[in-house]
Amino acid sequence: MPRYALKIEYDGGPFSGWQRQVAFPSVQGAIEAALARIAPEKPLIQGAGRTDAGVHAHAQVAHVDLAREWDPFRLAGAINYHLKPAPVAILDVAPVADDFHARFSASGRRYIFRLLSRRAPVTLERGQVWQVGHPLELAPMQEAARLLLGHHDFTTFRSSTCQAASPMKTLDRLEITRRDLTVGAEFTFDVRARSFLHNQVRSFVGTLERVGVGAWHPEDVARALEARDRSACGPVSPPQGLYLAGVDYPRDPFASAAS
Amino acid sequence: MPRYALKIEYDGGPFSGWQRQVAFPSVQGAIEAALARIAPEKPLIQGAGRTDAGVHAHAQVAHVDLAREWDPFRLAGAINYHLKPAPVAILDVAPVADDFHARFSASGRRYIFRLLSRRAPVTLERGQVWQVGHPLELAPMQEAARLLLGHHDFTTFRSSTCQAASPMKTLDRLEITRRDLTVGAEFTFDVRARSFLHNQVRSFVGTLERVGVGAWHPEDVARALEARDRSACGPVSPPQGLYLAGVDYPRDPFASAAS
Repeated sequence: MPRYALKIEYDGGPFSGWQRQVAFPSVQGAIEAALARIAPEKPLIQGAGRTDAGVHAHAQVAHVDLAREWDPFRLAGAINYHLKPAPVAILDVAPVADDFHARFSASGRRYIFRLLSRRAPVTLERGQVWQVGHPLELAPMQEAARLLLGHHDFTTFRSSTCQAASPMKTLDRLEITRRDLTVGAEFTFDVRARSFLHNQVRSFVGTLERVGVGAWHPEDVARALEARDRSACGPVSPPQGLYLAGVDYPRDPFASAAS
Repeated sequence: MPRYALKIEYDGGPFSGWQRQVAFPSVQGAIEAALARIAPEKPLIQGAGRTDAGVHAHAQVAHVDLAREWDPFRLAGAINYHLKPAPVAILDVAPVADDFHARFSASGRRYIFRLLSRRAPVTLERGQVWQVGHPLELAPMQEAARLLLGHHDFTTFRSSTCQAASPMKTLDRLEITRRDLTVGAEFTFDVRARSFLHNQVRSFVGTLERVGVGAWHPEDVARALEARDRSACGPVSPPQGLYLAGVDYPRDPFASAAS
């Protein structure tokens, strides 16, 4: 059966998360329902990462096996047609080899987290940023973020329900940038690793926000990491500022695809 | 009576426009309703520009006269409290002199228009960009935009219901930039003038999009301008990509205000 990789964008707001569930709307379920309209074999899809309720994606990747061959351009259009009006879009489709697996072939995941710092309520980007009402200092957050880079036991920054076999992960990037707005500022966290533990990015951001406000010192973050104890973590940030920004593969399946 | 300038952000989606109307929700009406909760004299406000239904603002400016003095910080918080859950926020408040008028004192208006070019439906930014499903060429759009700069009779690019006394306006800036996305591209139009005719920016963008797709040549835009005839205009773009980005005054009333 021909296998296709799908690049997927979604607004996670109305969904209980990526993963298919019987009683709640999910992104995976929405795409599988759309596929069932065009492929009588009712194919299932496998995503690169399971995003939580309220978490968004600029470029999730999934794969699907179909009974017949499709022109990638037409396949994307057909799925998108049947996805309406759900806020989910197939950005791109590429034929891939039988041994391509969206999750197990992935060599890296990239997340973006958007943190808005201002008093006035969010309007245009409601549900798309985490808002705090106080100012934040960039430099201490950056200093603390550097202490998290590299290969560590990240038990402190791991949900108690995380199913990963090991808490050992290598954090390749955690860069924070500040953009001044008309009033207030937006802080963007760019986070990259081969793979992540459950709630790892939101645990980082919630803890670093405490550093930005001055409640924690950067060395407190180093101590929390060394504690290897979930109770040493700062608050976990809410989901709505988090975006799965991209999934990397040794060979990008979409490299030759178009817009 | 003390006068205050308000800096206002809003998502224009749920509103029939800025201007107060009896039977339809408006941004002005929402703010006046919030003010009535804290000021028994039920003050009215005057905005710098009347945005149409579906048009957003990053920084609209209005002024209001209140019976008593308010700390600006507390006034912003009180209005925002009563605005919930409408997607309207007072970003900043500043005391101003009695002769400050949000509309008549303004020396410039800045608009941003966001045009998304890609096939897949918009998800996260639904209602916040104008989407077209085809590619657009930047250089011809930029060339055509330059032909619109300066002092002209803009009758061609003016709504037939425009109430301005004269079609003569001076366009100070019309810059178009392109940002590549995961798939497709977003084009941002940065448009500035002392003041605008009704539908002028959307008439520019709708016409320049025709140039970007190759249906019009840049010189067709020059000819349309010279025609001084509404029927010579290209299509008027939809409202949801348009943002009132800022209002300029000879002395910025918010210069010393905080976040």
